[in-house]
Amino acid sequence: MIETMRQRRSIRRYADKEISEQLLNELLEVAMRASNTGNMQLYSVVVTRDAAMKEKLSPAHFNQPMIKGAPVVLTVCADANRFVKWADQRRAKAGFNNFETFTAAFIDAVIFAEAFAEAAEERGLGLCYLGTTTYNAGPIVEALHLPKLVVPVVTLTVGYPDEQPAQSERLPLSAIVHNETYRDYTPQSIDTLYHDKEALPANIQFVKENNKETLAQVFTDVRYTKVNNEYFSEEFKKVLKEQGFDR
Amino acid sequence: MIETMRQRRSIRRYADKEISEQLLNELLEVAMRASNTGNMQLYSVVVTRDAAMKEKLSPAHFNQPMIKGAPVVLTVCADANRFVKWADQRRAKAGFNNFETFTAAFIDAVIFAEAFAEAAEERGLGLCYLGTTTYNAGPIVEALHLPKLVVPVVTLTVGYPDEQPAQSERLPLSAIVHNETYRDYTPQSIDTLYHDKEALPANIQFVKENNKETLAQVFTDVRYTKVNNEYFSEEFKKVLKEQGFDR
Repeated sequence: MIETMRQRRSIRRYADKEISEQLLNELLEVAMRASNTGNMQLYSVVVTRDAAMKEKLSPAHFNQPMIKGAPVVLTVCADANRFVKWADQRRAKAGFNNFETFTAAFIDAVIFAEAFAEAAEERGLGLCYLGTTTYNAGPIVEALHLPKLVVPVVTLTVGYPDEQPAQSERLPLSAIVHNETYRDYTPQSIDTLYHDKEALPANIQFVKENNKETLAQVFTDVRYTKVNNEYFSEEFKKVLKEQGFDR
Repeated sequence: MIETMRQRRSIRRYADKEISEQLLNELLEVAMRASNTGNMQLYSVVVTRDAAMKEKLSPAHFNQPMIKGAPVVLTVCADANRFVKWADQRRAKAGFNNFETFTAAFIDAVIFAEAFAEAAEERGLGLCYLGTTTYNAGPIVEALHLPKLVVPVVTLTVGYPDEQPAQSERLPLSAIVHNETYRDYTPQSIDTLYHDKEALPANIQFVKENNKETLAQVFTDVRYTKVNNEYFSEEFKKVLKEQGFDR
């Protein structure tokens, strides 16, 4: 499994082959064994196989082709609804309509998603996370009929791989690890840590295609702009309020 | 690996045995291969081995014994600081001081943490997630000298297991899976889904020890109270503002 992890890459093109109900359930069962907050299991997953439902979800993910191209789409949600309904029925008054509970449920949901991803890859499936989930959480709430106290946080498209893309680069380990306390980056350490990434032919090409001077500019000016980040911040906060997680 | 996952349990007591630098680095390298937002790697990890540093971190985790008992403590952080410093140095203006970027970095950090956990368990290590991290993010920021745009989100204590606890129960898979759209829970489905959990001798004992009428009340009245949830919601929001993620 360590070797599978070491070799991993996101898969965006899938073979025309269904994932059996049995395999999917086995992987979901295994993922449920991962850690969660106080064993409250503050998450849910909506499984999309139906073409009409993929059609509905697609715009919320900016029509990235993985949604319609994957046999299975999993929308993993922070979910306090089930717990609170249980509490209501057991003479227990849950104070769960707040940001702290959302945070715990968010962590639970992402741990669950990643445990699923690891198990699925071990079984030969390919996956892609869609970061668009929190951008367009509102439309996803609507498409999937998510009730109060349920917020979608990550989406995984899953299928048998129909591509073998190059592995994407990573920063050196020393870029992300701090011993005992955080030692902040200096201009010199930044240059050193980002040197190989910036020197990669694929990244040089990427800068050129985007008509930018530096790789960083592709991210700040094209892919993750201030105006978009601020817009989606407000949208996501609105969803948290509407779904009852932030009175 | 699927079998390791199926058998997993959180480990809170560790043998008096160090984790070698080499093994730890191998596991961190493998975890870095997991998915992340736009390959920006918006996370960092602070490794604590030093006894004096564990002493400092301990109160932030309500003195749970795992902090001082584990050879290694990992504080995994949502981190936009490194990226923004890189951008600044490359004539790129990052608009990353917002909730959307925090959300993306939060997801990156938790995916990284869970990938590490899976790899570490595969190598025979035992782990425990500490949910206290977002409760007391402020004191952790201080203890670890985290700069702006860095927020701790999960903590893992890691070591060689010195216990073999019973596996904790999970709800049936049908409790967390929804097909195509979310079908909300009915009083009847709640009763069915929680039946086995409530009937477990350990949980019956747990209700008794806490002098409560129902298992749900242990959670709402003792472990995750409204007043605490609301208090920690405000504290965590304050940290997000102080760390520059929510202007």
